[in-house]
Amino acid sequence: MTVEVIAIGGYEEVGKNMTAVKVGEEVVIFDMGIHLDRISIHEDTDIDRMHSLDLIERGVIPDDTLMKDVDGKVKGIVFSHGHLDHIGAVAKLAHRYDAPIIATPYTIALIERTIKGERKFSVSNPLRTLNPGGKLKLSKDLTLEFVQSTHSIPQAVLPTLHTPEGIVIYANDFKFDNHQKISPPPDYNRFRELGRKGVLSLIVETTRANEFEEVKTYSEKVAKMILQDLMEGPLKEKAGMLITTFSSHVERVQAISDIAKTSDRQILFLGRSMERYCGIAENLGILDLPDNASVYGTPKAVTKALTRAEERREDFLLVTTGHQGEPDALLPRIANGKTPFSIRQGDNVIISAPIIPNPTNKANRHMMERRLISSGARIYSNAHVSGHAGREDHRDFIRMLKPKHIIPAHGELEMLSAYGELAEEEGYRIGNNVHILRNGQAQVFNGGIS
Amino acid sequence: MTVEVIAIGGYEEVGKNMTAVKVGEEVVIFDMGIHLDRISIHEDTDIDRMHSLDLIERGVIPDDTLMKDVDGKVKGIVFSHGHLDHIGAVAKLAHRYDAPIIATPYTIALIERTIKGERKFSVSNPLRTLNPGGKLKLSKDLTLEFVQSTHSIPQAVLPTLHTPEGIVIYANDFKFDNHQKISPPPDYNRFRELGRKGVLSLIVETTRANEFEEVKTYSEKVAKMILQDLMEGPLKEKAGMLITTFSSHVERVQAISDIAKTSDRQILFLGRSMERYCGIAENLGILDLPDNASVYGTPKAVTKALTRAEERREDFLLVTTGHQGEPDALLPRIANGKTPFSIRQGDNVIISAPIIPNPTNKANRHMMERRLISSGARIYSNAHVSGHAGREDHRDFIRMLKPKHIIPAHGELEMLSAYGELAEEEGYRIGNNVHILRNGQAQVFNGGIS
Amino acid sequence: MTVEVIAIGGYEEVGKNMTAVKVGEEVVIFDMGIHLDRISIHEDTDIDRMHSLDLIERGVIPDDTLMKDVDGKVKGIVFSHGHLDHIGAVAKLAHRYDAPIIATPYTIALIERTIKGERKFSVSNPLRTLNPGGKLKLSKDLTLEFVQSTHSIPQAVLPTLHTPEGIVIYANDFKFDNHQKISPPPDYNRFRELGRKGVLSLIVETTRANEFEEVKTYSEKVAKMILQDLMEGPLKEKAGMLITTFSSHVERVQAISDIAKTSDRQILFLGRSMERYCGIAENLGILDLPDNASVYGTPKAVTKALTRAEERREDFLLVTTGHQGEPDALLPRIANGKTPFSIRQGDNVIISAPIIPNPTNKANRHMMERRLISSGARIYSNAHVSGHAGREDHRDFIRMLKPKHIIPAHGELEMLSAYGELAEEEGYRIGNNVHILRNGQAQVFNGGIS
Amino acid sequence: MTVEVIAIGGYEEVGKNMTAVKVGEEVVIFDMGIHLDRISIHEDTDIDRMHSLDLIERGVIPDDTLMKDVDGKVKGIVFSHGHLDHIGAVAKLAHRYDAPIIATPYTIALIERTIKGERKFSVSNPLRTLNPGGKLKLSKDLTLEFVQSTHSIPQAVLPTLHTPEGIVIYANDFKFDNHQKISPPPDYNRFRELGRKGVLSLIVETTRANEFEEVKTYSEKVAKMILQDLMEGPLKEKAGMLITTFSSHVERVQAISDIAKTSDRQILFLGRSMERYCGIAENLGILDLPDNASVYGTPKAVTKALTRAEERREDFLLVTTGHQGEPDALLPRIANGKTPFSIRQGDNVIISAPIIPNPTNKANRHMMERRLISSGARIYSNAHVSGHAGREDHRDFIRMLKPKHIIPAHGELEMLSAYGELAEEEGYRIGNNVHILRNGQAQVFNGGIS
Repeated sequence: MTVEVIAIGGYEEVGKNMTAVKVGEEVVIFDMGIHLDRISIHEDTDIDRMHSLDLIERGVIPDDTLMKDVDGKVKGIVFSHGHLDHIGAVAKLAHRYDAPIIATPYTIALIERTIKGERKFSVSNPLRTLNPGGKLKLSKDLTLEFVQSTHSIPQAVLPTLHTPEGIVIYANDFKFDNHQKISPPPDYNRFRELGRKGVLSLIVETTRANEFEEVKTYSEKVAKMILQDLMEGPLKEKAGMLITTFSSHVERVQAISDIAKTSDRQILFLGRSMERYCGIAENLGILDLPDNASVYGTPKAVTKALTRAEERREDFLLVTTGHQGEPDALLPRIANGKTPFSIRQGDNVIISAPIIPNPTNKANRHMMERRLISSGARIYSNAHVSGHAGREDHRDFIRMLKPKHIIPAHGELEMLSAYGELAEEEGYRIGNNVHILRNGQAQVFNGGIS
Repeated sequence: MTVEVIAIGGYEEVGKNMTAVKVGEEVVIFDMGIHLDRISIHEDTDIDRMHSLDLIERGVIPDDTLMKDVDGKVKGIVFSHGHLDHIGAVAKLAHRYDAPIIATPYTIALIERTIKGERKFSVSNPLRTLNPGGKLKLSKDLTLEFVQSTHSIPQAVLPTLHTPEGIVIYANDFKFDNHQKISPPPDYNRFRELGRKGVLSLIVETTRANEFEEVKTYSEKVAKMILQDLMEGPLKEKAGMLITTFSSHVERVQAISDIAKTSDRQILFLGRSMERYCGIAENLGILDLPDNASVYGTPKAVTKALTRAEERREDFLLVTTGHQGEPDALLPRIANGKTPFSIRQGDNVIISAPIIPNPTNKANRHMMERRLISSGARIYSNAHVSGHAGREDHRDFIRMLKPKHIIPAHGELEMLSAYGELAEEEGYRIGNNVHILRNGQAQVFNGGIS
Repeated sequence: MTVEVIAIGGYEEVGKNMTAVKVGEEVVIFDMGIHLDRISIHEDTDIDRMHSLDLIERGVIPDDTLMKDVDGKVKGIVFSHGHLDHIGAVAKLAHRYDAPIIATPYTIALIERTIKGERKFSVSNPLRTLNPGGKLKLSKDLTLEFVQSTHSIPQAVLPTLHTPEGIVIYANDFKFDNHQKISPPPDYNRFRELGRKGVLSLIVETTRANEFEEVKTYSEKVAKMILQDLMEGPLKEKAGMLITTFSSHVERVQAISDIAKTSDRQILFLGRSMERYCGIAENLGILDLPDNASVYGTPKAVTKALTRAEERREDFLLVTTGHQGEPDALLPRIANGKTPFSIRQGDNVIISAPIIPNPTNKANRHMMERRLISSGARIYSNAHVSGHAGREDHRDFIRMLKPKHIIPAHGELEMLSAYGELAEEEGYRIGNNVHILRNGQAQVFNGGIS
Repeated sequence: MTVEVIAIGGYEEVGKNMTAVKVGEEVVIFDMGIHLDRISIHEDTDIDRMHSLDLIERGVIPDDTLMKDVDGKVKGIVFSHGHLDHIGAVAKLAHRYDAPIIATPYTIALIERTIKGERKFSVSNPLRTLNPGGKLKLSKDLTLEFVQSTHSIPQAVLPTLHTPEGIVIYANDFKFDNHQKISPPPDYNRFRELGRKGVLSLIVETTRANEFEEVKTYSEKVAKMILQDLMEGPLKEKAGMLITTFSSHVERVQAISDIAKTSDRQILFLGRSMERYCGIAENLGILDLPDNASVYGTPKAVTKALTRAEERREDFLLVTTGHQGEPDALLPRIANGKTPFSIRQGDNVIISAPIIPNPTNKANRHMMERRLISSGARIYSNAHVSGHAGREDHRDFIRMLKPKHIIPAHGELEMLSAYGELAEEEGYRIGNNVHILRNGQAQVFNGGIS
């Protein structure tokens, strides 16, 4: 039985992930993401209303048109976790396949929201939840397993496909974090077991493979400790206090809440996406917000909350969207004087997010920070740890899994290549058993694990 | 007689230059520039219609309010050259002083245009032209001399004030270029003569003082040679061809013209500022455009020219504004599909300008280049040399002038400091005879050259 | 009574700190450090045997010859902490002053060792210990106080001089760390009290003032948590294990010990300076080494220990000198095959130190890492946090102390300048109440705190 | 007939180039270079005396042991040009093959010298010269052509193999320079002709493929113009004057000579490798040294020359080796006070070479510059242009040749990858017709040009 890994998207960029694995006559699809950076190249891009083919042409979603030449039955569309670069194209692409959508409960809930927001297509694939650690038989030959892992969003798993030819692991995205509050540590024992059973191919993210500074990614516990030190002073000062972070980073949101819950401030989570990610997480019992916290998402509710905060700024902690300085998000709008809440001399702003390094983000963030500072704010910007595995984490992963083949994924060519060189240090060889693919290319394995 | 150098603007930034020199009871002002970067911090900034005090508060123009406490008669407002960071605030500030405006003919012509465009104030100071190399007696004690120099705009001079206490030289901005076509080489002999006569203080630009890579700034002849190699191919191809460069950089415009004049293409200089700087330069006999060149500035004329070029793209060379990707300038608008001329597969675009390094420019330029490339253009971007003295040029300058005191100017603190360290290598000492000032501070010299 | 701060060393470099404070007719000297980088410029530099004047000429120690023109009685030579850039020149310079040496017990013990090692001069100044938090009357007018602080060496204090004209604080070097095991947190309450009493001048280190990434320096607790995650795997593997860190960083050494004490490995601290710093720290009850730890310093003892470790590598954890790759230190020598212990495939090496950024260190470290890797070692290099205050720590410090004047110290001009700009954000002004000095310059305060 | 390109060395590094092309049963080898950086990892590496297998193990020379499994008759060992990373291993490897060595006259002369210096092996392959532009029939099926090209050494050609299946071009290394004095411009017409005939595969250097700043490499004419401006002052000053550049860069040496020949100084070319490269070039009529120039290579002659120069420094221009600061080369030894010539206050040193970017060079160069400056020298370091094609040169090259396949070579993986992405912009696809190989891998072409 031939196994074929088809690189559809995310093999030439950080974004729009999509991979198909064909085993004999059956196919499993992993992820359908979007590429956020590409949206801004054409000013008139309107995702919700545009047709897939236009979005494909603009590089916003994966080009899955090659799938029409793939002769096989799609048995499932599997999502690894709920970030937009993994689920964002679901409403544009999933309806073309006669197969269920499978993901963890939190991811499924986010997918439902995405499908609901779609204006062009209607998506009616059945939705199936599978818990971390769970298994699901997709067909006589194929069983899907969600191996417990950690990332910067809850219920991120490593979808693992058991095939007659060996195991295929889709490790896209992950970090090794043993100290998260919400997510248990990665299931290292299971990794080692899988390694002993025989991994035919590891498909693995490479977003940090070309970074040589912090080679084992720090735990979220480190971020929490740093946040604690940063927040301690501002929480006590008689001044405004704002924090911005990733809405989907529920572990971080939880940490902020835990630190602030014994303070005299009311915690307001503000912004549409803050409401989306945190609301769902709270409903599913993932996020445990303290009594002094509230979430406001609609423009009207946010405005009202900001009006209150403007009056007694020392009584609130505002947790907002806008960490990249995106002009339409909340913190940049506050910085620009476009909300009822205005920054005053002595206000403290904590940015718990890195600049996602593209020129537009750098410009937006710079502009936002200049404006905040010129209004008198003090900015703290060093409270973050990455959600992606570092080089030494990858090395450990390879040693645990001992895969026969490795397909580096989710990255630009230089990241895939850097991962390839790392794998060579572990005895692999690019071109032999490490396969660097371009979007649209496939790698065929004729012999399985023997 | 006491000599006092008053740092008004440009001592904490690259931009908004303004310095006053008080000699006994008389004052001479040098430059009144704007700070372009600051304009974008507040979205509602409208220079032409805003009051000086508002612009001062936003950091857009120099804060000259301290001049009301300076007890002295202003004898002249002297402009070194026609760049906006030296003349841009003339219409906002000059009318407050009862003194003539003095500059070279090209600079005067640009100042006249600026004054004409002003909507808030009316400026009626007399305009006096002084040629490079010329002298003008400002009072019994003060004589102004315009020492021949070179920069990236024609008729840039080093205004030099002869006082009873010694010479004060305002070297802001300059490079040492012995091979320009339009401007003769700097008058090194005169520099040495001034050094022998006795320079009390050198006020000197420092924009490249903290760059250690290219330590003697390359001549424009180098830029021309590089341009020649770059343009050779595209001029002959059957494809569209565009060049963007600084409108005010007439030497560069001349070089482009000289290279293209024997080609079969018509050269179209397009854009409002292109028309302003080149038009004036041509009228004054500074710029010598070939027969196959035309200049179009008004939106209507530009549109018409672009319509023609769209039809027979291989017959034209378009020289446009927009090298920083500024969304409203011509090349970015072409890239964005907002003009009758559209980029097609195979068109060549030469960017003869560096990215002026701030995050907004980087983002704009990136976006423009992505759009050009996605439409099929090929981009050449390495045809530029700086217009500012490098570290070794500065060292030569100090050795020629042997000033008693040095005041580093036109730069952020790190540039002023780096210049200070360079001066220390030449035997000076920061704090003793190298004086690092902040905007609004003054340095008093009690003893002159003895 | 006039107060004068005399910048002797460390105002143009990171290294060779020395400052004198003259109050009326009395003088207190702070620190006498060396500049390690300068030693390598001249290959024949031999510190122990060279005369002070030669070392001064080579820039290795502070040029205190200007002190002969300072008309005042030296009442004490005060050392802030035991790093070489603060105490390293004591044996070359202290004997010229008829005054006691004053420092905390750990620092005094290190000074005694330095004096013992000196081959050129004999130093007989009385040694006086003063505990953190303690006070000492130096004269009728002057009282010295050691305010509790934190840094990357034990018993680092902020020497504070109470004078009739106000308080002078010598904050050189420090970080704000509330979670060290060995050192209690900085005495923030005392800082605020001093601020209320009236601080005439703050003399303050600036080594990280021009870093904008991590603006509040992380606690050592963060380093320990990271180390714990890094060490966990290697401690359990059947392979060699080495850690290198700063010998003087006793808090880090303690953390390593605490993590490894329950493992099956024996911990060997190896190298002359490891023995010096840890031995003294253990004797003074500062460092608490576990039962499975031993320290070996002499070449013979180290060789013997390495021979044992070579035989049963999985039973030892070697903690060595050489984190910068200095060719004569232990880890580089091991990497280079010059010791009985050789690196084998699978050995783990943790470098718990940053590259101190100069070209020689970069080259040495690169070479060492290449050699370790080519012998089969796996290197972990991201377990470190800085020992110096970040920008936001400095901002907090200024707000607590509210000094009338600030003198940035311990840094290159760009660091001093960057600190100056930070102080300006807090309402100060360079040139008015922030004074940037060069080595050899002095700042006189005529009016005290009123 | 099958064509196979075998990547032996230079596909994972900048250095040790070696490629074999097998056509049917015949093989042609291109280049046998060394990897200079690798030599310093092991301190005891002695190239002249070491066996090939040891050098292979240390990564110093290409691992050609795989050639024993290549079933074919070697018809020629072809050298593209005389740099050490292309010819340096000839004495270690060539004797294993029963085939003639073929190169241009200058390259052959350099190879002869290398063979003469060898202490371990004796090389007796016949040496055959082929002029740029010339052709040589290697067998019934294979014809070798040396297409005229330009680089940073004279007589660098693009060896081109005409096979029954199409043309294979070995473009390793080259730049496009239309203005060299010694070498005529690249034969662009021939490139286009070859493109029309049918290029099966282009093997192409990629050393600058990942640089995006200067995308069309500047001509040597630019370097000469810059040198002229730099040298003008120092030539006239009454002070010592030294220039260091690549000995093998005869075009640069010629430029320096041409600029200095009308001065009053005697030009002394000093150092063993200076004598080797310039001596041979002069003998072959390639280099035209003026009457006031002499070349000294032996230690004794150099010492004597330096003694003369020390006495009347203003009468000499010393052109030396040592631009990377290598401790044993001449300029570093002068800087370190180890020669009869000592640097004095006011001497001028021009470094006409970039820092080849590895940590050791950076450290050596830094140390040399610090020493020169501390002795009073003034350093000029910006007179260089690259000898390697930039991205836009590569694009032009692809368009001229229209190869069916491309094999990026001579670079680290990131360079090869960056080239691959460039080729993709021109319609190629990595993995389809752009083949990224690792050392030891081969690419087989079954179908030729049809």
